[in-house]
Amino acid sequence: MADPRSVEVLKEALQRLPGVGPKSAQRMAFHLLERDRDGARQIGEAIRHALSKVNHCRRCNNFSETELCPICDSPRRDATRVCVVETPADLEAIEQTGIYQGSYFVLMGSLSPLDDIGPDQLGVDRLLARVTEQPVEELILATNLTVEGQATADFLIDLMATVDIPVTRLARGLPMGGELEYMDPGTLNQAFEGRKPVRD
Amino acid sequence: MADPRSVEVLKEALQRLPGVGPKSAQRMAFHLLERDRDGARQIGEAIRHALSKVNHCRRCNNFSETELCPICDSPRRDATRVCVVETPADLEAIEQTGIYQGSYFVLMGSLSPLDDIGPDQLGVDRLLARVTEQPVEELILATNLTVEGQATADFLIDLMATVDIPVTRLARGLPMGGELEYMDPGTLNQAFEGRKPVRD
Repeated sequence: MADPRSVEVLKEALQRLPGVGPKSAQRMAFHLLERDRDGARQIGEAIRHALSKVNHCRRCNNFSETELCPICDSPRRDATRVCVVETPADLEAIEQTGIYQGSYFVLMGSLSPLDDIGPDQLGVDRLLARVTEQPVEELILATNLTVEGQATADFLIDLMATVDIPVTRLARGLPMGGELEYMDPGTLNQAFEGRKPVRD
Repeated sequence: MADPRSVEVLKEALQRLPGVGPKSAQRMAFHLLERDRDGARQIGEAIRHALSKVNHCRRCNNFSETELCPICDSPRRDATRVCVVETPADLEAIEQTGIYQGSYFVLMGSLSPLDDIGPDQLGVDRLLARVTEQPVEELILATNLTVEGQATADFLIDLMATVDIPVTRLARGLPMGGELEYMDPGTLNQAFEGRKPVRD
């Protein structure tokens, strides 16, 4: 290795980022050290700050700097409806539509035995506590329609049956702007199975 | 934004990395905070350490923790030959072949008016100082065969003519394993122009 030790260490560290291999890490290290030392300082500082500040909301498990996140803490949100999502990014996507005024539970992942993510890692006991401590009229499953997301949904459906909580699931079918010609068979299948009578 | 402020700040900071947009930054921030806090600490620490330690070799301009980098400092390297490369990664690629025992000069980029990188940003005056202070018998241009790299090479050829330093350039032609069927016209052109008589 021709690079100084501390550059090598930086390149190795950057590979801890998801989707970053040796080549990208090298490019990033070069960029930070040669073109953007301010940016490097900013990243280091932001990491330090976030690590010390960010924890999980006691109720919904989302990232939060306070014990209760602003959504759980808001009196305007309907606490009897809980929408279960995999990640904060999913929650944000739903929030941006503005269509949902209930509360959330963020699993922070999905069941994935290959990655050693089982029910314990997803904080399922916290979800159970959440739905039993406060009255919940509807648990809306909004996991991804991936294999892991589906397995997670199936698991939660069984679990909620044990505590008798009504569970719903986001509708599956053709997405907006979808062209049948380009839809995969799975989506077409769902669209057919879920077809509804047209009301006058 | 449903994310806590310090998560937003982290996501913004991560976008200073090259090739990282809002979506990747979100994925990275989530990964660091939820799955790999150790990795996050490691990255922050590596950045802090590298920023404080890494500077440029006084002679070859490569990253170095010492005033002279190990290559410039080595008595076994031929200081009368200087290979000019764009980045430390290019230098490393050449070092890994083991074929070259001379010294280097690292431009830390290439001429790119659109990115505001001119001769001054490339430390061309340092290169001039390097080739005039110590006797140099050969300056080997090993810039990339991109538009910017070619422009940089052309610029350096003119510059070296003013100080009367002999300049060579890496051979251009078909790469190892290259199949003519898939070569671009530019490469084929170079391969034809640079063809050599077969010696018996």
